[in-house]
Amino acid sequence: MKGVAHQKWWGWGVEGVAFNYRDKPRMAPFVMDKVGIDLSAPGTPPPAFEELDVPASRLGEELAATLGSAVGAEHVVTEDLDRVVHTYGKGLADLVRVRAGDLPRVPDVVVYPADEDEVRKVVDAVVAADGVLIPFGGGSNISGSLTPPPAEERTVVSLDLGRLNRVLEVDEAAGLARIQAGVLGPDMEEQLNARGWTMGHQPDSFRHSTLGGWIATRSSGMQSDKYGDIADITRGLRLVQPGKVVVLRPLPSTSSGPSVREMILGSEGRLGVITEAWVHVHRVPENRDIIAYLYPSWSAALAAMQEISTSDAHPTVTRVSDANETAFSFSTQKAKKGVSGKVQTVLFDVLARRGWDLDAVCLSYVGYEGGSARVKAEKSIVGKIVKKHGGIKLGRGPGALYDQKKFDTPYIRDFLLDIGAMGDVSETAAPWSKLMDVYTGTIRSAREAFDQLGVQGFIMCHLSHSYHSGACLYFTFAFAPGVEPVDEQLERYWVVKRAIQQSFIDTGATISHHHGVGTDHAHWLEEDISSAGTDVMVALLRGVDPGRNLNPGTLLPAHREW
Amino acid sequence: MKGVAHQKWWGWGVEGVAFNYRDKPRMAPFVMDKVGIDLSAPGTPPPAFEELDVPASRLGEELAATLGSAVGAEHVVTEDLDRVVHTYGKGLADLVRVRAGDLPRVPDVVVYPADEDEVRKVVDAVVAADGVLIPFGGGSNISGSLTPPPAEERTVVSLDLGRLNRVLEVDEAAGLARIQAGVLGPDMEEQLNARGWTMGHQPDSFRHSTLGGWIATRSSGMQSDKYGDIADITRGLRLVQPGKVVVLRPLPSTSSGPSVREMILGSEGRLGVITEAWVHVHRVPENRDIIAYLYPSWSAALAAMQEISTSDAHPTVTRVSDANETAFSFSTQKAKKGVSGKVQTVLFDVLARRGWDLDAVCLSYVGYEGGSARVKAEKSIVGKIVKKHGGIKLGRGPGALYDQKKFDTPYIRDFLLDIGAMGDVSETAAPWSKLMDVYTGTIRSAREAFDQLGVQGFIMCHLSHSYHSGACLYFTFAFAPGVEPVDEQLERYWVVKRAIQQSFIDTGATISHHHGVGTDHAHWLEEDISSAGTDVMVALLRGVDPGRNLNPGTLLPAHREW
Repeated sequence: MKGVAHQKWWGWGVEGVAFNYRDKPRMAPFVMDKVGIDLSAPGTPPPAFEELDVPASRLGEELAATLGSAVGAEHVVTEDLDRVVHTYGKGLADLVRVRAGDLPRVPDVVVYPADEDEVRKVVDAVVAADGVLIPFGGGSNISGSLTPPPAEERTVVSLDLGRLNRVLEVDEAAGLARIQAGVLGPDMEEQLNARGWTMGHQPDSFRHSTLGGWIATRSSGMQSDKYGDIADITRGLRLVQPGKVVVLRPLPSTSSGPSVREMILGSEGRLGVITEAWVHVHRVPENRDIIAYLYPSWSAALAAMQEISTSDAHPTVTRVSDANETAFSFSTQKAKKGVSGKVQTVLFDVLARRGWDLDAVCLSYVGYEGGSARVKAEKSIVGKIVKKHGGIKLGRGPGALYDQKKFDTPYIRDFLLDIGAMGDVSETAAPWSKLMDVYTGTIRSAREAFDQLGVQGFIMCHLSHSYHSGACLYFTFAFAPGVEPVDEQLERYWVVKRAIQQSFIDTGATISHHHGVGTDHAHWLEEDISSAGTDVMVALLRGVDPGRNLNPGTLLPAHREW
Repeated sequence: MKGVAHQKWWGWGVEGVAFNYRDKPRMAPFVMDKVGIDLSAPGTPPPAFEELDVPASRLGEELAATLGSAVGAEHVVTEDLDRVVHTYGKGLADLVRVRAGDLPRVPDVVVYPADEDEVRKVVDAVVAADGVLIPFGGGSNISGSLTPPPAEERTVVSLDLGRLNRVLEVDEAAGLARIQAGVLGPDMEEQLNARGWTMGHQPDSFRHSTLGGWIATRSSGMQSDKYGDIADITRGLRLVQPGKVVVLRPLPSTSSGPSVREMILGSEGRLGVITEAWVHVHRVPENRDIIAYLYPSWSAALAAMQEISTSDAHPTVTRVSDANETAFSFSTQKAKKGVSGKVQTVLFDVLARRGWDLDAVCLSYVGYEGGSARVKAEKSIVGKIVKKHGGIKLGRGPGALYDQKKFDTPYIRDFLLDIGAMGDVSETAAPWSKLMDVYTGTIRSAREAFDQLGVQGFIMCHLSHSYHSGACLYFTFAFAPGVEPVDEQLERYWVVKRAIQQSFIDTGATISHHHGVGTDHAHWLEEDISSAGTDVMVALLRGVDPGRNLNPGTLLPAHREW
């Protein structure tokens, strides 16, 4: 669709951008050693799109005509490429399946409305025709929220919000902006920055995700310590439902009963289509610095992170990698940048002489923003806490590099898939008192899953998003499934993914801190919010959408659908 | 009921504590001048309880027996005094009606369960008998959330949580505590303080309200700038529903779909009975200071408050009174305390020489907590902002006095009722950009209502609870209705109250920032969260409680009940 940017149909991001290990001399040996994968092995690129066997659209003429009169015929698209792009998000299973041409149910049509009025017409037309409507933003979802139920017999309509991409209004006196839901992160920030404002929301998916998607999945950005989760940032919104629009005006706080705003947040399309939101915006900060630190151990790092979170410093980013992620991170440095090989060797010699266990070193980034006096005072507070827990400051260089490269990581997955390996993520949140149990339990569960499969496997973790009472732990894992058939590969993937998610639940953590529920995490919903809590959610969803026309199948485990 | 503290059946607080104007030499002249009320007029105290004509309990033998076996017969109380105490909250209309013996529907029985298990049995028994269940905490509600619908034919059971009053657990490593819902503010803080912790939640009702009540009505305390609203503080909870319990574990943040936690927050008994919660707790701060400041005008004060809210200072309390509330506040100082008459005279002479309009002066309190360095730095930041907006620092004395007396204000209402006058409050929240419109609109609407009634009337306001994008405005109004019949008095009261609430809605503010919806504010719900937003709330409430057994009548306007 002209004018609306889409990611690659088979992978993350845009055509022409890919991960390259060859300029990172230490990476291939590291991956061979830790994961048992040969990065230089001949890869199998994704097939040509023409090789896919795309099921024909089942869009009927009547609905096609209604949609055409709603948004203009040129914005009602049944081309195979558009439909395949709108079939999956970018979860590991999504990528494996789309590369294999596994397309059990593809949307019958993609519509691109221009504004809320057109969205209303589309929603009304689809529900009147008893079709299924799936809202689509940047398509970066990795929890299975975008995929039509395989057995869906009704017409499936993907509603792409990409043309609703404008910052409509900045209320400078209140630090609020009214923004259309389909805008992508960079486009939104460009419009805000031009007026001197920023939203400060930077999820890993930033370049390829939208405001509406963030709200619909309860996103959180890496600067959430300062700017808040999207649930905090979103103060008002508009949600199109069949025949009507929920309008929530921007309010700093209210006691108007159960929060309808907080029902729409995380609703993943099941309550309607978010068309715009009032969000917090902030003046672009005078100074912005990310400083790198090293800790001698994961437990020291966690203790320091908690102390920072309750200190008088209010950093924007608090992040620390475990030993595995730290080692991986060092291995992916280019020769001349970051903590380069030579510098690292010298540094590690010094640390070894100080008695550090070099296999236990943990790399941390802390971000600071604001006036010079504030940044200086905060760095001083954090510096003392780092020192108290035996850590040292590395400085600004590696922090700046992290800041530049922070959105590039997802490209690695596609590269790994080329060479027959799987990399994916699972993240969660828990109280500080449980984080070490969550961490060790998850590592153990993943290792047991790897052992069960007879693969080497690798898992690493970082802490980010600190709160008063806890934080997010973000795990990345990789392994070579060692089997050819896609179904078997995915079975093996699910053995590991399931072990990790179950471990979250068993150790008191949640199914997801900021990736949402989708279909991938729905299995654990009842264990997370209790069976009776799930009843409450079902009451809400069923009451609003008795006919299951609005993105059915996401959020709830199958046996809780009505 | 032995062991459970109740407020006076006819008014605020405990027997033996009352408001006294005689030790405040400037108050009577001020009130005569501004409100036209003679404080020294002979008062009519509330009647003796024995004079009331209390409708007999309709509790049937079968349900009585079931309740008795659930909680013990001695905890199933049908005494008139208990039943009347549980008939009303402490809103102005509640007080007027109970003093007049206006008791159209009194709960048939009050039950006092000892723990969650007994709560479950009570809930199951009441719903099985198709009765109506009204949870009751401290009884301080002022929005009409506690009163049985006048025409309710079914058995009405008031479930008093007063025996669930313990801090069960403090998770020191996470800054979380598990606390029973029926505990009163001071009792809870005493238990927490004994372990070195505080929740920091201080609503005006603190002494006579409970944790469960705060959660059920979305309370906010005067220190919310630091500690958050109760919605932020509450991380996990347990909610008893017929046949089951919703269990939400404590989580710092989660993306597990629409927030069931945020559905229970503000549910005012319509989704079940909250029995306990996991809440944020903090170490009792090293230093705690409240400093008073004066501004030359309301607009200067608002501008300063907003600047403080976006500054690097993070005070605990930010509060400023308009000129009327400032004058009222000065008039209620005892001769030897606070800004005493003499000091004020000298001070005002100085300000007059500086060109201040003494009728426009606004008194502000800002609270600071933490380590000495932090408190010092924050005071310095705030001091500069105050100065920039033309304000001056008064110092610690008046601040300390405010801090001591902050929970005493509600007693004034009962004193006013004795002498035939009405005093009440309405509060709201809005974006910073709209606050001046909300303020002037509300003052104008109240004055028009006073004029319509031909009464002098008085209205004053303070700003408190600052957020990034806005703040709360809290209005207090008083007038002498000038008519004898209670119905006519209440009609006049509603003319003023309605004018104020409608003005909130018309200027972009919410129906309530922290007093909840109840029956008093339900009329404006659809205008606040939109008709379609109300549909969403109805879907939730109806789906959970199709038989309308759980506190029916609160939250929704009557025509939205099913």
